[in-house]
Amino acid sequence: MTPIVALLSDFGTRDYYVGAMKGAVLAACREATLVDIAHDVPAHDVLAGALTLAAAGRAFPAGTVFLAVVDPGVGSERRGLAITAGGHLFVGPDNGIFTLVLAGAEEARARALANPALHRSEVSPVFHGRDVFGPVAGHLAAGTPFDEVGPEVTDPVLLRLEEVRRRGPWEWEATVIHADRFGNLVTNLTRRDLEAIAALTPGGLGELVVMVAGAALPLARTYSDVAEGEACALLGSSGRLEVAVHRGSAERALDASRGAAVVVRMGRGE
Amino acid sequence: MTPIVALLSDFGTRDYYVGAMKGAVLAACREATLVDIAHDVPAHDVLAGALTLAAAGRAFPAGTVFLAVVDPGVGSERRGLAITAGGHLFVGPDNGIFTLVLAGAEEARARALANPALHRSEVSPVFHGRDVFGPVAGHLAAGTPFDEVGPEVTDPVLLRLEEVRRRGPWEWEATVIHADRFGNLVTNLTRRDLEAIAALTPGGLGELVVMVAGAALPLARTYSDVAEGEACALLGSSGRLEVAVHRGSAERALDASRGAAVVVRMGRGE
Amino acid sequence: MTPIVALLSDFGTRDYYVGAMKGAVLAACREATLVDIAHDVPAHDVLAGALTLAAAGRAFPAGTVFLAVVDPGVGSERRGLAITAGGHLFVGPDNGIFTLVLAGAEEARARALANPALHRSEVSPVFHGRDVFGPVAGHLAAGTPFDEVGPEVTDPVLLRLEEVRRRGPWEWEATVIHADRFGNLVTNLTRRDLEAIAALTPGGLGELVVMVAGAALPLARTYSDVAEGEACALLGSSGRLEVAVHRGSAERALDASRGAAVVVRMGRGE
Repeated sequence: MTPIVALLSDFGTRDYYVGAMKGAVLAACREATLVDIAHDVPAHDVLAGALTLAAAGRAFPAGTVFLAVVDPGVGSERRGLAITAGGHLFVGPDNGIFTLVLAGAEEARARALANPALHRSEVSPVFHGRDVFGPVAGHLAAGTPFDEVGPEVTDPVLLRLEEVRRRGPWEWEATVIHADRFGNLVTNLTRRDLEAIAALTPGGLGELVVMVAGAALPLARTYSDVAEGEACALLGSSGRLEVAVHRGSAERALDASRGAAVVVRMGRGE
Repeated sequence: MTPIVALLSDFGTRDYYVGAMKGAVLAACREATLVDIAHDVPAHDVLAGALTLAAAGRAFPAGTVFLAVVDPGVGSERRGLAITAGGHLFVGPDNGIFTLVLAGAEEARARALANPALHRSEVSPVFHGRDVFGPVAGHLAAGTPFDEVGPEVTDPVLLRLEEVRRRGPWEWEATVIHADRFGNLVTNLTRRDLEAIAALTPGGLGELVVMVAGAALPLARTYSDVAEGEACALLGSSGRLEVAVHRGSAERALDASRGAAVVVRMGRGE
Repeated sequence: MTPIVALLSDFGTRDYYVGAMKGAVLAACREATLVDIAHDVPAHDVLAGALTLAAAGRAFPAGTVFLAVVDPGVGSERRGLAITAGGHLFVGPDNGIFTLVLAGAEEARARALANPALHRSEVSPVFHGRDVFGPVAGHLAAGTPFDEVGPEVTDPVLLRLEEVRRRGPWEWEATVIHADRFGNLVTNLTRRDLEAIAALTPGGLGELVVMVAGAALPLARTYSDVAEGEACALLGSSGRLEVAVHRGSAERALDASRGAAVVVRMGRGE
């Protein structure tokens, strides 16, 4: 079975970093299929990396090795991790980038990357993607047993995500946690949250309205349920409430970005 | 023979969309070689996607499966399509993205993606790249017969392309349809058009001059036929008349972009 | 053994060029694993391409074929080259893009791409990536002997790199040659230069200070050796002295870019 290594980073697409990291994977597992998820994750933005990794990961076949490197703390005391969860393997820095992978897994195990035999012979303190994470991912893809990467870790770093807050009997406040390439605003409110809210609301889902940046938006099924240029809220493909503009950018139209409040409440709002 | 799946989209290189779509292909065809064509096609720009797909596609070996997703109408009533043309397979939305592939093919057949057994078990109304197109492309790459994707379609959506207009006995008006990364301005005037024009012009190709944004440009063979910083017109690598600046950007130098008129006429122009 | 073809270009990620070049490789070597190094090398910037290629290349396993195309002189009299060096093969234009690969190799041989049997049947004067370099790289990956690409070349074009200049008994002047995605400023001063400077300096490495844009920076081991937002100098992962800001951009913070002077001198600087 062809080993698959899927890569995510904030290394961009103009420097040598992505190439060197891939070379290091292939040096350890020449027959791997390398798959780029995204390398333009905003620089140093561990939360954006965590969201992207978890949302993309679910679609991959069992046994995929994910190499996820958004690593502003490279060279410091932060550990490197390998994780097994949901039938996949993950390799990267212990800085919270695996928060959502771990939150979504029924069972997960983590190990620190402490076995130098699996690293590059010389490790630069500023590029563990090439010298530690890439080689370990390659070795795991080539069949090295998970337990050989290093000792077990029971306290991986987890990002604290903003929580959805109930503000009244029929009013909840969510937060924008990501703005995507199209200007869609992704919130921390999940499908499960939405179902719970609908269950608590007289009239259910159909009575809900979404307030963002002073605008009251309908809850739609897809972008084209509203006219071109109009904004709506909908359940996005990653299972989170999103705010979007049909063939446009909600980020620009509403002048809202990460951190903005998104209120879900019983209708009749204006 | 290794199955090849070549991907084109407007999903960008910073979000999870490209990764999830690739995961979906691999979930249906683990041994596929995935090849990125371009994912920074301008958002929602179906014409740009159609041009890029057709120009890139010609270079690939027979049997390649192309997965092309620029899909502003996702979740609406627009169909999904699979197409066989020129020895290749194509999968994507029925919104005109296959216009130039179909125009260039001697023989083509299209089918609607109506077989849910080839889709993801749960289909999000806002991400058919992951839930419909990716899985179908993977299944076709893995050998599923073309006819199984769904019923035949005889009226695929086609974009209306601007036509080259004859404005006088020795004068034709073309239109810029694309500005590339280098600022080269690609027009709708093809190699065949240019040959026809040359045949109608006393003196032939050598007498032609190209007018754009008030400037009269020579018809060159390659960029370096003119001095650095100078503009010229030439037959581009995709078989279309282009306006370029040697080691510079025609888009910036001439302040012209999609929709700009490009006039080809008998020389002596100023 | 799976043939690996690693690609680098300034073609960007929104046009058809990268896709067509990959298609041409696969048409000659269908089973190749294609690996993207970077396609957003600044347009026409041969030096940036040369630095990226050399730095990435070192990490790849033996036998990798590198296809490197930053080619502002396409269609002119400049030659195409294939090179063997350090156990790798390289294909691209003879314009200096292989300067650092050649400088770092103990033994290298170069040949001109003069065998039309290995090119596309029709060669566009403006796209040798698809019509010459891609096909030759594919054929080499598929096992075509190196000597068949064309006659030997003994005078490949080499870029002249700025040299580190000694300005006084304990003072050296280096130059910024690249600003990366994170705003790190990479200089022409190598690890070997730094060791030589340390050997000449009373007190050694610990006494050195780095001056750039009027600021005196400590020589650190990694970014987090200084506080967030603070600048430092360090030996970067590509083996060159770099100027960086912890979780920030040195390029922006110091308003410095390619060509800026970076002075290394004995301490007590202000």
